Amino acid sequence: MQRVANCILRVNNQVLMLKKPRRGWYVVPGGKMEAGENIKDSVIREFKEETGLDIVDPELKGSFTFIMKEDNETVQEWMMFTFQTTSFQGELLEFSEEGELEWVDVNEVLDKPMAEGDRHIFKHILNSEDQIYGTFVYTTDFKLIDQDMDPSRPK
Amino acid sequence: MQRVANCILRVNNQVLMLKKPRRGWYVVPGGKMEAGENIKDSVIREFKEETGLDIVDPELKGSFTFIMKEDNETVQEWMMFTFQTTSFQGELLEFSEEGELEWVDVNEVLDKPMAEGDRHIFKHILNSEDQIYGTFVYTTDFKLIDQDMDPSRPK
Repeated sequence: MQRVANCILRVNNQVLMLKKPRRGWYVVPGGKMEAGENIKDSVIREFKEETGLDIVDPELKGSFTFIMKEDNETVQEWMMFTFQTTSFQGELLEFSEEGELEWVDVNEVLDKPMAEGDRHIFKHILNSEDQIYGTFVYTTDFKLIDQDMDPSRPK
Repeated sequence: MQRVANCILRVNNQVLMLKKPRRGWYVVPGGKMEAGENIKDSVIREFKEETGLDIVDPELKGSFTFIMKEDNETVQEWMMFTFQTTSFQGELLEFSEEGELEWVDVNEVLDKPMAEGDRHIFKHILNSEDQIYGTFVYTTDFKLIDQDMDPSRPK
């Protein structure tokens, strides 16, 4: 099963995002866990690879299961672990192979084009101290057809 | 990849544990995640199946990667998500198919026979408010040969 770890780096009311070339959708930096890694080692390594930055003390804020369905059959399942931190070291890459890096004002994050489930996740994590858990069901062309978040909204 | 979710239920300075029949090792109730489940739904379902109890507001405290090695080759890898709560509803099963249920005084938990990695995990979670992350490497007969915890000890 594929597992992804990513991190919301939030500094001076801005979030470091990555605009992916394929759909122009915004994500936060991160990527696939490798065999034998734990989730924290993974998010630190991936964030560094994509941005050049060493995140400091990332804390897990959300744990999610994603399912992709076609004709009511599950064709893919993966997990995502979303961390958050306000602290980093190092210099931002001028060019990332994964897409365009961009500091986005916190109050503009939700206006960016992105996967619909990610919008729910950012809405929650950017407005709450809770840990959250969730399940998201997508079609193969990434339309969100079902979601279940716990807690269901930011307190 | 196998994924396990379990929960430390801590009430009146006691922890509900399960003594597994095979080795006589103590664990906290939990079990294998099912396809499509998120980790919180999974721990609630598994805890109920093994104990009869509905845990209330379990919070994720630890996320771990386990590797089993034979002749320096990885033969198995799995993840474990350990929650904690102090609240439950329902009546404890008199008999669990998974082993003997036992309320153990918090200060006696570490004296019980158990997997060596689990001892490190309980030592940390029972003495700290931190979330922890870790990697544990075992032989096929469950001798701990390497471990990496982050933070490395309870604050």
